[in-house]
Amino acid sequence: MDNGATTPTDPEILEAMKPYFTDIFGNASSFHSFGREARNAITEARDSVAKLIGADDSREIVFTSGGTESDNYAIKGVAEALEKKGKHIITSSIEHHAVLHTCQYLEKKKGFEVTYLAVDEDGMVNPQDVKDAIKEDTILITIMMANNEVGTIQPIAEIGKIAKEAGVTFHTDAVQAVGTIPVDVNELNVDLLSLSGHKFNAPKGIGALYIRKGTKVAKYLHGGAQERNRRATTENVPGIVGLGKACEIALNTMDEKSAKLTVLRDRLISGIEEQVDYVKLNGHRTERLPGNVNFSIRYIEGESILMKLDLEGIAASSGSACTSGSLDPSHVLLAMGLTHEVAHGSLRLTLGKYNTEEDVDRVLDVLPKVVTDLRAMSPIYNG
Amino acid sequence: MDNGATTPTDPEILEAMKPYFTDIFGNASSFHSFGREARNAITEARDSVAKLIGADDSREIVFTSGGTESDNYAIKGVAEALEKKGKHIITSSIEHHAVLHTCQYLEKKKGFEVTYLAVDEDGMVNPQDVKDAIKEDTILITIMMANNEVGTIQPIAEIGKIAKEAGVTFHTDAVQAVGTIPVDVNELNVDLLSLSGHKFNAPKGIGALYIRKGTKVAKYLHGGAQERNRRATTENVPGIVGLGKACEIALNTMDEKSAKLTVLRDRLISGIEEQVDYVKLNGHRTERLPGNVNFSIRYIEGESILMKLDLEGIAASSGSACTSGSLDPSHVLLAMGLTHEVAHGSLRLTLGKYNTEEDVDRVLDVLPKVVTDLRAMSPIYNG
Repeated sequence: MDNGATTPTDPEILEAMKPYFTDIFGNASSFHSFGREARNAITEARDSVAKLIGADDSREIVFTSGGTESDNYAIKGVAEALEKKGKHIITSSIEHHAVLHTCQYLEKKKGFEVTYLAVDEDGMVNPQDVKDAIKEDTILITIMMANNEVGTIQPIAEIGKIAKEAGVTFHTDAVQAVGTIPVDVNELNVDLLSLSGHKFNAPKGIGALYIRKGTKVAKYLHGGAQERNRRATTENVPGIVGLGKACEIALNTMDEKSAKLTVLRDRLISGIEEQVDYVKLNGHRTERLPGNVNFSIRYIEGESILMKLDLEGIAASSGSACTSGSLDPSHVLLAMGLTHEVAHGSLRLTLGKYNTEEDVDRVLDVLPKVVTDLRAMSPIYNG
Repeated sequence: MDNGATTPTDPEILEAMKPYFTDIFGNASSFHSFGREARNAITEARDSVAKLIGADDSREIVFTSGGTESDNYAIKGVAEALEKKGKHIITSSIEHHAVLHTCQYLEKKKGFEVTYLAVDEDGMVNPQDVKDAIKEDTILITIMMANNEVGTIQPIAEIGKIAKEAGVTFHTDAVQAVGTIPVDVNELNVDLLSLSGHKFNAPKGIGALYIRKGTKVAKYLHGGAQERNRRATTENVPGIVGLGKACEIALNTMDEKSAKLTVLRDRLISGIEEQVDYVKLNGHRTERLPGNVNFSIRYIEGESILMKLDLEGIAASSGSACTSGSLDPSHVLLAMGLTHEVAHGSLRLTLGKYNTEEDVDRVLDVLPKVVTDLRAMSPIYNG
């Protein structure tokens, strides 16, 4: 129930990767046939990634170490390439920290000005707000495609149209979207798009950045001439092969997976709403990732729920895994207008391809009891 | 014969990694037990890395996506953290491009001044030159531990002592050294040290940066709070486990591996010197990586040799894999005083743990014929 944090590597994907660890282990930049074999595997994987996101040319795909590097590369790269043109960036207040902290870094250390757009109570960005925020010196708009905590899917195509008309570079962090819902860089009018393998059953440590031909982005890693001189470092061949395979599988099975997850999600949502009092679904009810369920459960702490569920063998989260350990309530929920107290009692359940109806029913069996027990101990719950 | 470019992943290491792809696949930052298991594996791997390089505290190890990121992180990180103190950096002219291009970036884009120290004909940096180059505003010295092309091992301990006395932060790119020769961060007096997994039979896509406690380095990847808030991004658990295992194996078998490689190397060197005329060993004859052989072979092109060897099933390189495809002669060989013409005829043979005496003898059987054939066609060879 925590597939939003990460997913297991598909056995089929691991099988595809294995030869590239031990047999076809050449350095893809090497001159000899061992290197060429590795290079060919990379080319094939790059084609699969391009195809999944509708890129015109696979040379628009640069492999990275994951979603965070893709976001850092896109945002800092555009900032550095265009800082002479302007120093204003538009983003939203519910972005992943890989975007928010990068924007804050540019503000604090590099003299950029960043507009953090507010969202509505469903966590939705209003495209009109984006349009209104564009100024003479705006060089970048970066709005995530689907929120990692509450699952709300943003009107990226509309925002993309606005960005294109204004001639402003547009980046979207699509880490939660790619592999789960259809993504087409041309329909969405995005110039840069971040994706991450481990969110859709490829391994950890591999991701990609889509860079539309002609987009100005400074290099992020300096060194060798790999990735057409855009990202130095010896290519992570097994990881790249794994990502390519995951994209291939996603292209063939996405409709089916998405339909299944939507049914499970809605069963879980209505089950919780029926069986537990004082709960509030966070995020948009329909414009929502197929596998995402996020509730605020009043009068108790999210962490206590997680501990109780963990004892029952159910893995869940209170929000993003990247910020767990922190005692601050979710910045996403606060931006959606929740009070600190309500935000603290939030529970995220994220379904993946291996989840079943039985899993959902088990949560619906366990969770109401957990809530009842915890509320019985809560000094602020009056029954 | 191209283990300097990359090495296969040890079957034993791949075995250790496997469960972390499919079974223990939790996000190491997650609150629940699945996350905790992943976190424990990371802690164990971090201890193994720390032990191999003699770090006092495993918290001084930050995992990265490889040697290039470690070098970028160290150099840009120190530059950003200390730019108010000074903007002068000292390096050598034979560094890997991950260091050189990063320094050039700081020069061109960030107003830093970089001193590129010359080396002697063996590719050795003179510690006195480092001392003489230190100025009031020097904030960083970055000198590689062992050269990737010619194998020369630098007097890092002496340079470290000079840096320490001068109070200047000292980084070493030890990508070619760690796992092959003994490395102790305290004996060497280094503050930052880069290492890469795939150079010693761990997988590609994983590396580490040692950061001595108290060293000022700005963050490189912004986002989540992973790696004690120093490197955001979901931890590459299988890669980290693989690197940990490789360090454990290296600690137990380095002496044996090094002794074996030294014998093979010297057999190869003396065999080539005996059987082929007009050759010159590049790099220091004794202060040299156990597995490195690099020759300039007069009157022919390195690329032609590689093609012929490739047809015989022998993988070799003309220098660094990271720059192959480029027609420029090696910057390392030029810095060592070779002419363009001689540098063009260079051949690097790098031995790894799976090489045998038979492999060496096969090269000694094939190479002289290849050279004779190519010279017969060479317009500049007069016999």
